[in-house]
Amino acid sequence: MRKILTTSVGFVAVMLAFPVFAQQQEIKLPPQATEFWEPIVRKVQPGNENHQAPSDAIVIFDGSSLSNFVSSKTGQNPEWTLQNGVMTVAPGKGDIETKLGFGDMQLHIEWSAPTVIKGEGQGRGNSGIFLMSHYEVQVLDSYESRTYSNGQAASIYKQYPPLVNAMKAPGEWNTYDIYFTAPRFNSDGMLVSPARVTVVHNGILVQNNIEIKGPTEYIGIPNYKAHPNELPIKLQDHGDLVSFRNIWVRKL
Amino acid sequence: MRKILTTSVGFVAVMLAFPVFAQQQEIKLPPQATEFWEPIVRKVQPGNENHQAPSDAIVIFDGSSLSNFVSSKTGQNPEWTLQNGVMTVAPGKGDIETKLGFGDMQLHIEWSAPTVIKGEGQGRGNSGIFLMSHYEVQVLDSYESRTYSNGQAASIYKQYPPLVNAMKAPGEWNTYDIYFTAPRFNSDGMLVSPARVTVVHNGILVQNNIEIKGPTEYIGIPNYKAHPNELPIKLQDHGDLVSFRNIWVRKL
Amino acid sequence: MRKILTTSVGFVAVMLAFPVFAQQQEIKLPPQATEFWEPIVRKVQPGNENHQAPSDAIVIFDGSSLSNFVSSKTGQNPEWTLQNGVMTVAPGKGDIETKLGFGDMQLHIEWSAPTVIKGEGQGRGNSGIFLMSHYEVQVLDSYESRTYSNGQAASIYKQYPPLVNAMKAPGEWNTYDIYFTAPRFNSDGMLVSPARVTVVHNGILVQNNIEIKGPTEYIGIPNYKAHPNELPIKLQDHGDLVSFRNIWVRKL
Amino acid sequence: MRKILTTSVGFVAVMLAFPVFAQQQEIKLPPQATEFWEPIVRKVQPGNENHQAPSDAIVIFDGSSLSNFVSSKTGQNPEWTLQNGVMTVAPGKGDIETKLGFGDMQLHIEWSAPTVIKGEGQGRGNSGIFLMSHYEVQVLDSYESRTYSNGQAASIYKQYPPLVNAMKAPGEWNTYDIYFTAPRFNSDGMLVSPARVTVVHNGILVQNNIEIKGPTEYIGIPNYKAHPNELPIKLQDHGDLVSFRNIWVRKL
Repeated sequence: MRKILTTSVGFVAVMLAFPVFAQQQEIKLPPQATEFWEPIVRKVQPGNENHQAPSDAIVIFDGSSLSNFVSSKTGQNPEWTLQNGVMTVAPGKGDIETKLGFGDMQLHIEWSAPTVIKGEGQGRGNSGIFLMSHYEVQVLDSYESRTYSNGQAASIYKQYPPLVNAMKAPGEWNTYDIYFTAPRFNSDGMLVSPARVTVVHNGILVQNNIEIKGPTEYIGIPNYKAHPNELPIKLQDHGDLVSFRNIWVRKL
Repeated sequence: MRKILTTSVGFVAVMLAFPVFAQQQEIKLPPQATEFWEPIVRKVQPGNENHQAPSDAIVIFDGSSLSNFVSSKTGQNPEWTLQNGVMTVAPGKGDIETKLGFGDMQLHIEWSAPTVIKGEGQGRGNSGIFLMSHYEVQVLDSYESRTYSNGQAASIYKQYPPLVNAMKAPGEWNTYDIYFTAPRFNSDGMLVSPARVTVVHNGILVQNNIEIKGPTEYIGIPNYKAHPNELPIKLQDHGDLVSFRNIWVRKL
Repeated sequence: MRKILTTSVGFVAVMLAFPVFAQQQEIKLPPQATEFWEPIVRKVQPGNENHQAPSDAIVIFDGSSLSNFVSSKTGQNPEWTLQNGVMTVAPGKGDIETKLGFGDMQLHIEWSAPTVIKGEGQGRGNSGIFLMSHYEVQVLDSYESRTYSNGQAASIYKQYPPLVNAMKAPGEWNTYDIYFTAPRFNSDGMLVSPARVTVVHNGILVQNNIEIKGPTEYIGIPNYKAHPNELPIKLQDHGDLVSFRNIWVRKL
Repeated sequence: MRKILTTSVGFVAVMLAFPVFAQQQEIKLPPQATEFWEPIVRKVQPGNENHQAPSDAIVIFDGSSLSNFVSSKTGQNPEWTLQNGVMTVAPGKGDIETKLGFGDMQLHIEWSAPTVIKGEGQGRGNSGIFLMSHYEVQVLDSYESRTYSNGQAASIYKQYPPLVNAMKAPGEWNTYDIYFTAPRFNSDGMLVSPARVTVVHNGILVQNNIEIKGPTEYIGIPNYKAHPNELPIKLQDHGDLVSFRNIWVRKL
């Protein structure tokens, strides 16, 4: 806060000079006028480390089971691999998605590209995180492999390249901290407020509250269609052995 | 990225049906149309841990010296205490500010409230971080002390309460990760784009790209005045033994 | 639209060169890929003149009666004057408000300052338009009278001065065209999206989608409190003979 | 403004009760604390009618000559038709553009679709207004002709359909009132703030400060490239006899 200049009985009095005709008078002004006691701010216990789930987070994956996901293909239990507290894409088994739906959210997720490097560009360590099942934050091993700018890791896929390339090497763990605002539609089904997202990759800002152009499209341009306020988070099976751990969400 | 369905000579061909009169025809559409190779995304080496300075950061304080600051009072070397890699407010010695100016920025800073607890509300562990010398992210021991909502830790002081109270106990280290967009003014000196800020407190989103209402005012309402594009970051001496460490900035 | 370069069987084919490894190939790309036929855009019949109500507007006041308003004081029929298709504040009778509530809206309203000029500054031709009963677009005769910048006509009262002073002389009719987005609150009652407003005064942009700082306060700073999604529009009795005509709203 | 409750010597005194420990005290608070006399708001004389150029506008076309344009094709005087104060596309003569560049702006422009109706969809009365030569507000006779939603009149071409279809019949004059904010790029050439635009068509809001996705593309998706802060406004020759009149711009 600004420094208190003079204290007196119970509150602070400050002399202000007002311009023009008001200049002659001095006004005693209490700072309390701009102190608001409501709304009362809810308390949250942060994790011991910033990457750990705070007390109000919904833990999606803590390494013990895939029970918060279903297979997008079958609607049944996902067939991805679970080993040593890490889950890994099982190529061909399809995408998985959370049982719960989420709209406005903070999402923490960690991922690692395969150490056996094969392929180039989009063929190397490819997966993706679809917010609300529609809006993709790209997962890709673009540590030492060039692809199109709006398709590398931490891009909003085919929409926005990341501001910088903050990748770690294959086998190392990357973190994404994602702050997402869901789109809003009016009763005509017209978009009145696009989705917005901030992405922090390994502690580095790579998307600064950008306005998402519409659902991610591999082909053609994105185009919003009205949808529910909450939808599952989807993780992509793109045929590569990408691993994930430590996934939690806070509803905003 | 979205899944590739069919591959053929050199690029991917996908069948799309178009509505209305276009429906009869099938169109072979290449996904390359939406792949952009420029601008080329600059590479940055992240810190080993997310709180550590990445390769493109300007390190303001790494524990070794206060040489990147001056006293706001004297313009000379700051008289704050430096001990064990930590700097602490020297009550009465005044605010300190960076020698360099910053506009749009990512700022990482860690702070700790005094373990000897005294005072209540604004009287307990009070300091502040003034972005561009004008826009304050509040520093306060509001772990177990009630004050006005828009004056507790991680508030934009006297403007926005934090979304939640994510404080750690006195003596523990709090982190702020701040993503700031400077205000813009036109040639009439009128504000055309207010400052915006996202604040993450101990890994928890507390300010989501909010629009700052103007320079922080202890008294009265904030009111923008045109100013330069870059200004120092200021840390406040509010008379309490608040400590800081590990301060770095990335220009955005 | 962009010019069609070459047409062929049923759709347009354009040669694109892709950079890097893709450069060797030429791709035939149909523009239809980026043509979206949905959502279907609802048709609205505009007024003959732009100030006249379009077909989807809710006409609040067309000069014939005050039946769409109630007195904010009594909840009964408003006692403002209705003469020659114009309504005029009846000093002392209190504010009036629409029977209907509105959130996101386009509002057209015309007003005229009294021809008998008396007073200075805030004492001359003062009234106000409170969107959602809380957010005031100032009405004042600031044609040739100086007051504080954030209190003159077309200011967001005590928050933002207009970009320019576009006033007409007392007795002449001023138009306000207002495009308003209501604030959103989350389930904690915290603000997640402030109100926004664009104001066009006599055809001149004076507020460009600015973010309203909170409910208008004569004293102290504005501070959002969670409220319903739709609330009445209120017109102020500030003791001066300000007149209004031709008021219509479109829900957005 | 808010109603004055009590007046006293020179300023207004209001009783406020503060919560918690502060509740016992009463504070006399002057409203002047939130009155700002600067910046001084520049005066602009509005047109007699809202569609007429205000005193600070740059008149681009008032019906007398095409002297503020050049041909985009030849760089010479434009060969479009000028008759009865109206200018009309001369098919095949190419686009025309303003000699001056503009960034942030308010643009008023009126246009009329040909009365001899021929063609359907994009083939009927097609032209376009390219802000900064890159960002197109579509001009098309979509009064009674269906085309893709993001390609009809008042769409941001191939990006956003208008919120509603506010067209007038062929031969009648349509107005566009456009409020445009130019995009900003950082020193890496990365987009830090996209272009934004509000469009009012015949007095009806059709684009509400939407974020433009990038330069208009007939083929493929838009993709920002860093460019100067001011660029000409371009009007399109799409082969149809679209007419324009009364064009003026205010720099914002």
